[in-house]
Amino acid sequence: MIILGLDPGLACTGWGVIARAGNRLSHIANGQVRTDAKAALSDRLVTLFDALTDIMLRHQPDAVAAEEVFANTNPQSTLKLGQARGVVLLAAARSGVTVGEYAPRLVKKALVGTGSAEKGQVEAMVARLLPGAAIAGADAADALAVAITHAHHLGLAHAIRRSVA
Amino acid sequence: MIILGLDPGLACTGWGVIARAGNRLSHIANGQVRTDAKAALSDRLVTLFDALTDIMLRHQPDAVAAEEVFANTNPQSTLKLGQARGVVLLAAARSGVTVGEYAPRLVKKALVGTGSAEKGQVEAMVARLLPGAAIAGADAADALAVAITHAHHLGLAHAIRRSVA
Repeated sequence: MIILGLDPGLACTGWGVIARAGNRLSHIANGQVRTDAKAALSDRLVTLFDALTDIMLRHQPDAVAAEEVFANTNPQSTLKLGQARGVVLLAAARSGVTVGEYAPRLVKKALVGTGSAEKGQVEAMVARLLPGAAIAGADAADALAVAITHAHHLGLAHAIRRSVA
Repeated sequence: MIILGLDPGLACTGWGVIARAGNRLSHIANGQVRTDAKAALSDRLVTLFDALTDIMLRHQPDAVAAEEVFANTNPQSTLKLGQARGVVLLAAARSGVTVGEYAPRLVKKALVGTGSAEKGQVEAMVARLLPGAAIAGADAADALAVAITHAHHLGLAHAIRRSVA
């Protein structure tokens, strides 16, 4: 099972692809899509959409999960984030894959065991769970963390179904 | 010259197509794209994107203009609006057309003469400028108002170029 994790942002969207076979996870690819702050907003959205559509085509994920975006205290930032998130969700959904969403606290809890973990602790755990992965940056690490969270969640759902059956 | 005006929203996006020949404007089509509030966000964004892509293909606008979205006092509403706006701008920009943006105050000023005009005054002016147009609703009227504003703006730019030449 191939899982794509996403950390949406207008300036930089992190992405990470992992494979899950039973309880075993492995790293496939990760990266960051950057858009030019000097370009027109609509062009930045096209750049983001085209890059994500390309990643979806290349890796053909069975499941997609995105870090839930929170309304920022700065309304202009919230608007920007919303625009990027809309395009990111669209690119995934157009391929017919359901998009799971996880709050940052839940991702931290799944990886480190506490919702108040530091960013560095999450990154260290990603590196430990996916040994040998060359991680493109902080946003790519967050995207991989979301993919791992989704894998755990799917594994748990599977185990529950099995124990109920 | 065919101009498409848009009033972006997640629940309802208004659109309106007009033709401009010199100083004459005429109505071509208008409507509202509604998305199901009970559907998943990603599905609603796909509905919006597909409908707008279809409108772009059907009417082949030379220019597109959208009502500028404002950060709302409610951050959750701002996030929703941002998502819809991102998808609307993307659908237009993917067809290679530049998207002009106009603040609501500017649209009111262009149509009624004052930025503090009531919504009803704008709608009445749209109906007067585009006689015979059956307007689908308030969001479609706003979209037509944005298209008219863009037509005026383009006409003015043309007149200035002519007077300078």
